[in-house]
Amino acid sequence: MPEIRIVTESQLRELVTLDQGVIAAISDGFAALATKKVGMPPILRLDIPEHRGEVDVKTAYVPGLPSFALKVSPGFFGNPALGLPSVNGLMMLMSARTGLVEALFLDNGYLTDLRTAAAGALAASHLSREDAGIAAIFGAGVQALLQLEALTLVRPIAQARIWARDPAKARALASRASAALNIAVTAHADPRAAISGADIVVTTTPSSTPILRADWLEAGQHVTAMGSDAEHKNEIEPQALLRADLYVADSLVQTRRLGELHHAIAAGLWGANAPFAELGAIVAGAVPGRTAGDRITICDLTGTGVQDTAIATLVHRRVLAAGAGTVFTS
Amino acid sequence: MPEIRIVTESQLRELVTLDQGVIAAISDGFAALATKKVGMPPILRLDIPEHRGEVDVKTAYVPGLPSFALKVSPGFFGNPALGLPSVNGLMMLMSARTGLVEALFLDNGYLTDLRTAAAGALAASHLSREDAGIAAIFGAGVQALLQLEALTLVRPIAQARIWARDPAKARALASRASAALNIAVTAHADPRAAISGADIVVTTTPSSTPILRADWLEAGQHVTAMGSDAEHKNEIEPQALLRADLYVADSLVQTRRLGELHHAIAAGLWGANAPFAELGAIVAGAVPGRTAGDRITICDLTGTGVQDTAIATLVHRRVLAAGAGTVFTS
Repeated sequence: MPEIRIVTESQLRELVTLDQGVIAAISDGFAALATKKVGMPPILRLDIPEHRGEVDVKTAYVPGLPSFALKVSPGFFGNPALGLPSVNGLMMLMSARTGLVEALFLDNGYLTDLRTAAAGALAASHLSREDAGIAAIFGAGVQALLQLEALTLVRPIAQARIWARDPAKARALASRASAALNIAVTAHADPRAAISGADIVVTTTPSSTPILRADWLEAGQHVTAMGSDAEHKNEIEPQALLRADLYVADSLVQTRRLGELHHAIAAGLWGANAPFAELGAIVAGAVPGRTAGDRITICDLTGTGVQDTAIATLVHRRVLAAGAGTVFTS
Repeated sequence: MPEIRIVTESQLRELVTLDQGVIAAISDGFAALATKKVGMPPILRLDIPEHRGEVDVKTAYVPGLPSFALKVSPGFFGNPALGLPSVNGLMMLMSARTGLVEALFLDNGYLTDLRTAAAGALAASHLSREDAGIAAIFGAGVQALLQLEALTLVRPIAQARIWARDPAKARALASRASAALNIAVTAHADPRAAISGADIVVTTTPSSTPILRADWLEAGQHVTAMGSDAEHKNEIEPQALLRADLYVADSLVQTRRLGELHHAIAAGLWGANAPFAELGAIVAGAVPGRTAGDRITICDLTGTGVQDTAIATLVHRRVLAAGAGTVFTS
């Protein structure tokens, strides 16, 4: 009779926030992806066009970790009109030795938010200038704030600019972020003005047409594009990748199919199998990250199962230590 | 705050057994696969070779059903040595309109067992002779008994023969099946003797080398091969498919890659995209099933997500009617 521990979103929020422990776990996960025989199958995706819905399932097995996660992320874009969040879902944690389900984290996407923001912190810590003080964020959703918070954990960010399609949302986020992070945050109506002079740019939108133009990029800037996790999404003009000194993928297999790289390949700028660095290889020290202050770097994040396994394993340790959740015998 | 209903295996066993309601739900699911725009992505599979483990994830959206299932099936073949079952896992049920998780069925594979046996009943009801009275089963596991029980629900089975690699297990199953189903069941040491004179043969083994030879097949026999759900598994000699008058797949996309057909294609008997009938088209009446008493028919079952959605939707109705399970708010 296996025992399964069920932990709700509110219990999880008490145990884990965006902290250095989460960033370290995600860092270890990416390093494993580059150095160990990680099993990470292609994302399973189910589309429900009648209801503007999609479900993504991600998983990864990391040798050496006691457990592995399987994450189910439904996104239904008609939900806000019904007063419901677009994104929800849960994570399952299974024993790597027996496959038995150990825990269900009913997180409604909260752990995904954290592990996604942590990847942004990791990208910035390896690819942005160490003295980066000005951040520009495109978008005004949950990730916009979390990605900015993530930057403050790894770089001396003193100033931030927010651009979003809806200026009212940009202003509201600027005011919330300023209070939450205790830095100067301003809303900008023009995306070009927002990134001019910024050291780090993070794009967090679901846009399907490029917002960031190649000729806006300035020497020394680092860009993390994390909004594109599906074929049709595209935040950065393909030529920007050509203009960058270094393009880095979270997973090349994925960014060739889903990320910004996918659009650059579709535009004929590179062949389908052109080689690029992966974040894990940079984290593991196998490939250099930023090599000089004037370089332009771009990191393309589509979200990987190894991040889910990394955060779920960390959270499981904290859950057990706190005796949190409810145990079911089934 | 979404509400999620959690139902344990023992609660599920009280609400659902292999009955005509389950067979009807699976029949509707297969018919939908042939007649509606069902969304059924390729199976996600994660291998954990260090622990002889594998995880399969299946899902399907059926237009018109209020919910869809996502099923996670871990199989870890070192578990029996640890005193644990090889197969376990759970099913999630999500709203087709909002993607919100409605229920978690902690079934440890029980619902998979039922929907798999129901597909066997469905295949026999469309492909075997109506007067089929003698069944032969290869294998002595959970599916061996359930497939035999399934046959008794759709055909006047009066006699059954069991062959298994381990003769003691075959004898034990014969005695259990005889008592449970109230028919004459005998164990056979020779697989050829077991199928000689049988009207229906069901193969339920995890074999990776063919057991059933092509030249053993007799006029009028129907064979359901349901053991092969992975590339390396193979219960039937490829030539048997050539010898049959009718070969039927549960899902051609899957049997070309995982089922008995896969081995016949690998043996060069057909091209990779040779067309064959699917069970759903026969159930829906779009393609004839058995057309004469002397025909040899083979049905190749690899297990489909539409079966999971069909049984989970049925079970959800019964769970709600009974007020079963525990509701979590998360």
